[in-house]
Amino acid sequence: MKLRRSDRMVVISNYLINNPYKLTSLNTFAEKYESAKSSISEDIVIIKRAFEEIEIGHIQTVTGAGGGVIFTPSISSQDAKEMVEDLRAKLSESDRILPGGYIYLSDLLSTPAILKNIGRIIAKSFMDQKIDAVMTVATKGVPLANAVANVLNVPFVIVRRDLKITEGSTVSVNYVSGSSGDRIEKMFLSKRSLKAGSRVLIVDDFLKGGGTVNGMISLLREFDSELAGVAVFADNAQEEREKQFDYKSLLKVTNIDVKNQAIDVEVGNIFDEDK
Amino acid sequence: MKLRRSDRMVVISNYLINNPYKLTSLNTFAEKYESAKSSISEDIVIIKRAFEEIEIGHIQTVTGAGGGVIFTPSISSQDAKEMVEDLRAKLSESDRILPGGYIYLSDLLSTPAILKNIGRIIAKSFMDQKIDAVMTVATKGVPLANAVANVLNVPFVIVRRDLKITEGSTVSVNYVSGSSGDRIEKMFLSKRSLKAGSRVLIVDDFLKGGGTVNGMISLLREFDSELAGVAVFADNAQEEREKQFDYKSLLKVTNIDVKNQAIDVEVGNIFDEDK
Repeated sequence: MKLRRSDRMVVISNYLINNPYKLTSLNTFAEKYESAKSSISEDIVIIKRAFEEIEIGHIQTVTGAGGGVIFTPSISSQDAKEMVEDLRAKLSESDRILPGGYIYLSDLLSTPAILKNIGRIIAKSFMDQKIDAVMTVATKGVPLANAVANVLNVPFVIVRRDLKITEGSTVSVNYVSGSSGDRIEKMFLSKRSLKAGSRVLIVDDFLKGGGTVNGMISLLREFDSELAGVAVFADNAQEEREKQFDYKSLLKVTNIDVKNQAIDVEVGNIFDEDK
Repeated sequence: MKLRRSDRMVVISNYLINNPYKLTSLNTFAEKYESAKSSISEDIVIIKRAFEEIEIGHIQTVTGAGGGVIFTPSISSQDAKEMVEDLRAKLSESDRILPGGYIYLSDLLSTPAILKNIGRIIAKSFMDQKIDAVMTVATKGVPLANAVANVLNVPFVIVRRDLKITEGSTVSVNYVSGSSGDRIEKMFLSKRSLKAGSRVLIVDDFLKGGGTVNGMISLLREFDSELAGVAVFADNAQEEREKQFDYKSLLKVTNIDVKNQAIDVEVGNIFDEDK
């Protein structure tokens, strides 16, 4: 299909946005849109400049025989901070407090526009890392892991707390469940869901005692894989953690007052290195 | 920020792709990129033409005071058919057969590029419907529902088979579990997750006896909501269903031969109306 330059720029931008972290040769575009490789090259220069101007992301040009362009999505620090501030305000709404001091967050983690932004913010903060897969635990972590994996363009793996026939052979580990640390449970991962030697980013919705994350870290060892990092939507600052691990959080809950129906939420540590 | 036309087209395309089904006024772009509304209007004409040429989707212009542009994502019939054919080949791989005649599909439903395409194909086939939310049952349906909800830009709601404290008050219904229809179980939905009067698209990974989908349909009644349609990744043609409902499937499994490790898969009925 022969396209005009302006049309070509729109369709090439669209392609790059939908195929992040993927090397595509300029010839692919040249053949598809019946243009000279030099014209495509010029298109890329304009798209690259526009992407950088509004901080959608970076386009890297790889030269040589196996070369091409790779799009790495990003988000401007200002946009990211505004989004997290907006989430902080939403999480502070007093009607989220459930009996027992739990917080209702399913609505936030099931809205595509919110998930997309969370995915971009988390992915950006691990941009310089090689990541082969995103791991989470069912069920609430799934949309978050999915959102981050979408941006990084890698598969996500879902650890389960129950055994399902449809997962085939699984590997299981024990983990400490609940903040009191008095209950030991099992978590399972399908054997074929993660290749040995993978570098894995663990993502979860709410970090309390850290038992689930520690469980996933032990699973990584069983799969001869490596931890690339841990990112959570929110963590509970009041909670004591037995085993420490580094993590990045978008939000930090500093106080839940069930009696007065009040939640105090601060921005987490995810922007700390920007300072 | 003042941008050149070529740059503006790239950033406006990006905005529309990331904000499907959302009405945005031309003034928003005019102010943001310090351009005359008439220039933005011309940009939209070019973007619209490019989107239609490669069948990314449609741009509708709404005139008048509350007007603007809305982007409806789509996918070309040819691309959709190639993708489904590719999935058909993948699902036919004999090493997917698990003991008991179950099929392993977690790898397909955890790869962003695949999910994105499935989301676009399902969303396209319900394009002319008003849909307020996508519903599924935990855990395997979640990435699929998420993918469809991303394209339709509506929230998704997750029905659970177990009770979680973090969901708050829930409504439960009974449903028939397993193809033999001899087990009755319960499914739960958080009361605040779905507004009354919603039109809901039900999405699931694998349709067998239909008990889970019938359960979700009864949940919709409890929430004074309406069924907009049912879409599944794959269905099992051999299975008998007690209560019938209309559904669209991408793939149809016609035979699973555990002894000879063979699966026969056909393209489902999702393209039937295209004929």
